[in-house]
Amino acid sequence: MSITSPAGFRAAATAAGLKSTGAPDLALVVNDGPSYASASVFTTNRCKANPVLWSEEVVKDGTVRAVVLNSGGANCYTGPEGFQTTHAVAERVAERIGVGAIDVVVCSTGLIGLTNDRQQLLDGVDVVSAALAAGPEAGAAAAEAIMTTDSVSKQVLVEGPGWSIGGMAKGAGMLAPQLATMLVVLTTDAVVSAEDCDTALRAATRVSFDRLDSDGCMSTNDTVTLMASGASGITPSLDDFTEALQRACVDLAMQLLADAEGADHEIAITVLNAASEEDAVEAARSIARSNLFKAAIFGKDPNWGRVLASLGTTQAAFDPADLDVAMNGVWVCRNSTPHEPPDKVVFSGREVTVTVDLKAGDARATVWTNDLTHAYVHENSAYSS
Amino acid sequence: MSITSPAGFRAAATAAGLKSTGAPDLALVVNDGPSYASASVFTTNRCKANPVLWSEEVVKDGTVRAVVLNSGGANCYTGPEGFQTTHAVAERVAERIGVGAIDVVVCSTGLIGLTNDRQQLLDGVDVVSAALAAGPEAGAAAAEAIMTTDSVSKQVLVEGPGWSIGGMAKGAGMLAPQLATMLVVLTTDAVVSAEDCDTALRAATRVSFDRLDSDGCMSTNDTVTLMASGASGITPSLDDFTEALQRACVDLAMQLLADAEGADHEIAITVLNAASEEDAVEAARSIARSNLFKAAIFGKDPNWGRVLASLGTTQAAFDPADLDVAMNGVWVCRNSTPHEPPDKVVFSGREVTVTVDLKAGDARATVWTNDLTHAYVHENSAYSS
Repeated sequence: MSITSPAGFRAAATAAGLKSTGAPDLALVVNDGPSYASASVFTTNRCKANPVLWSEEVVKDGTVRAVVLNSGGANCYTGPEGFQTTHAVAERVAERIGVGAIDVVVCSTGLIGLTNDRQQLLDGVDVVSAALAAGPEAGAAAAEAIMTTDSVSKQVLVEGPGWSIGGMAKGAGMLAPQLATMLVVLTTDAVVSAEDCDTALRAATRVSFDRLDSDGCMSTNDTVTLMASGASGITPSLDDFTEALQRACVDLAMQLLADAEGADHEIAITVLNAASEEDAVEAARSIARSNLFKAAIFGKDPNWGRVLASLGTTQAAFDPADLDVAMNGVWVCRNSTPHEPPDKVVFSGREVTVTVDLKAGDARATVWTNDLTHAYVHENSAYSS
Repeated sequence: MSITSPAGFRAAATAAGLKSTGAPDLALVVNDGPSYASASVFTTNRCKANPVLWSEEVVKDGTVRAVVLNSGGANCYTGPEGFQTTHAVAERVAERIGVGAIDVVVCSTGLIGLTNDRQQLLDGVDVVSAALAAGPEAGAAAAEAIMTTDSVSKQVLVEGPGWSIGGMAKGAGMLAPQLATMLVVLTTDAVVSAEDCDTALRAATRVSFDRLDSDGCMSTNDTVTLMASGASGITPSLDDFTEALQRACVDLAMQLLADAEGADHEIAITVLNAASEEDAVEAARSIARSNLFKAAIFGKDPNWGRVLASLGTTQAAFDPADLDVAMNGVWVCRNSTPHEPPDKVVFSGREVTVTVDLKAGDARATVWTNDLTHAYVHENSAYSS
C-alpha cells in the first residue's frame, strides 16, 4: 500500500546528508506513463517557499513526470539563491530520468530560513535516480524519507476495479486550512485526464486536508500532487474516481491528525443544521482554533461554555440563545443553557466528538483538531534547537 | 490610586459567598455626582452573558449611577433565570442607594454555565450598600473583589490639573480583540458630557484593551464603564481628557498583560510602514495569534520564519519577498531572507519586542500578546475543576 502500488510508478529514497541524524531525507517518485496527467494544490500562504514558487509553474500545463521531495530544510525565505537550488534540483532530476525540468515538481520540508546544501541535494538526486524501483517497498522508503517530526510514515492504498490510488503524506503539526506543512503525493494507474485530476483533487482536499486544523497555523510549503499514469488502461467515471480519491485523502488526513505534535486527543467537531456548509465550517473552525477549548479537552473538561464563546465570534447564522452542544454524545447544553450534567461525559479514549446544533438550516460539516497539551508547547518551543 | 481617588465616588466590597474560598467577590461603585455622565463598551461576542445584555440597555441614555460587580460566576448561558438574577441585583442596588435600576450597570465574571445564587448576591448587595465609603482604600477593596484567576489587583490613577481619572481592572487571560474576560471601571471627577465620555472611551480602548491579544479568545462578559461625576468642577478639553484616559487604559492593559495566565513573556509586536493602520493591526494580530510563534518565544527561539508564515495568512499590503523582521532589536531577517545571526538575539527579561517592516506605507500599530507556555495549558485545562 504505497505510491508505487499503482502500475506505472517507480520511487527511491536516500540519505543525502541534509538531516544531521543521517536519516533518509530525499525521495523521488517518477511516473513512467503512458499518461502524465496531473493536478496539484498548494498552500494559500502568501509567503511561499521556493519549491512552491517553482512547482506552481510546473503544474500549469497539467503534465508532471516526477516529484522530488526533501526533508531536512524547507528552502523557504532563502531568497534567489534558494530558488536557484530548487531549479538546479529539478534540472538534475530531469537530466537523470530523461524528461524536461519543467515537468518536475519539487517539495521541501523542514526548518525555514535555512539554506539547503545544493551539492548534497544534487548528489542525492544522482543516487535516487539510479535506484528507482517499482513495487511497494520503494514507495515505503520514499514515505519515510519525507518525515520530519512525524513519528510514523503515512501511506494509503484505495482499490477500484482494475485500478488503484496510492498515497503518502508527511505532516505532524501546523495542520491548518488550505493545507499546512504537509506534503502529499498521490498516484493512480487509472486513465484520468488532467482536467479530471484537478476536479477530483479539489473536491477531495476540500473535505479532508482543508478541514484539518491542528493549530491554526498555515505553512509555507504545502503541496499535494496527484499523478495519473493510465497504466491500468481502465477509465473510471469521474464520480467513482473522485469518491476513491476522497477516501484516500481522508485516510491520510486522519493519519496526519493522529500524529499531530504532542496531542493527547483527536477531536472531531461537527456542526449540524447550519444555514450553509460555509457557515458550518466557519463555526466548527472557530471552536477548533480556541486555545481555551483545546486546553480544556486536554484536561478532560467538557467545558461547553468555551464552545459557545467561540461560536459567538463567528458570522454564522444562529440564535445565540438557542444553541445545543454535545460532547462524546452527551448533550451538556440545550438552548444555550446547562442540560445533562457535564460529569456524564466520559473521556476514555483519544477520540473526542463535539456536536453543535445551530438550528438554522440543514447543512453540516466536520473539522478535525487536537487538544492543546504540554507536549505541544514543548515540541514547538524546541523545534529549531 | 483607585476608582475612589477622584472626587464624587464611593465604593465597597464584601464576600457574598459566591467564591468557595470565602474571598471577597462582590463590589459596588457609586457615582455621587453632581453629574452622572457615562459611556461603556462591551464584548463583541454574539453570545453575551446576562449582565451584558442588561447593561447594554442601562448605558443607552448616557447616565449611570452605579456599577455592581461580582466574581465567582459569570452568569452566562444561564437562560432567563440568570437574566432575572441580574435584574434583581440591579433592583436591589437601586433600592438601597436610592436610584433607578435602569441606571445600574451589572458585571459578572467567573465560570460560565453556572447559576449564581441569587439570595447570596442580594444579601451581599445589602452589605456593600451599607459599607460605601470614599477614599482610596474603598476602591482598593473593590479592585480585589473582582479578581478571579488574577494574581494581583489592577488599579491606576492619572492626574490632570485639578481633576483625575481612576481605574480598576480584572483579567488574567482570554484577553483578545474587542475586550475579553475583562471588567474595567473608570471614574473621573472632570466635567465631561456623556457624548464626550463615549468619544474618549472609544478612542482610548481602541489602542489599549482592543490591542491585547493574549490567546485570541473573546469573552462573553467584557465590560468597560466610564463614569464622570463632575465633582471637580473643572472641564478639560476633549483632547486632554482623551489623552489622559488613553494613558489610564494603556496602563491597565499592561497590568492585564503582565498577569496573563501562565505567561513567561510579554510580547509587543509592532508593525511599521503599513499601508494603513488597519493593515498594521491585522499583520500584528496574525503573529500574536500564532501558537507556533508563541511557543517559540517560550523556548527563547527567535524563529522569524514563523513570523513571516503568519504574515502570509493576512490580506495586508506587502511584498512577500521584501519583509524585514527584528526581535529584541536584532534584524534577523531582511528582504525575507536571513540577515543577522539569530543567536545575537538576547532573551534576558520578560519583555520581548518583535518589529516588522512591511515597506508599504507609513502607518503603524502595536499589538501585545504573551508566549504559549506549559503553565498556560495547565491553568486553562484545570480552570473549571
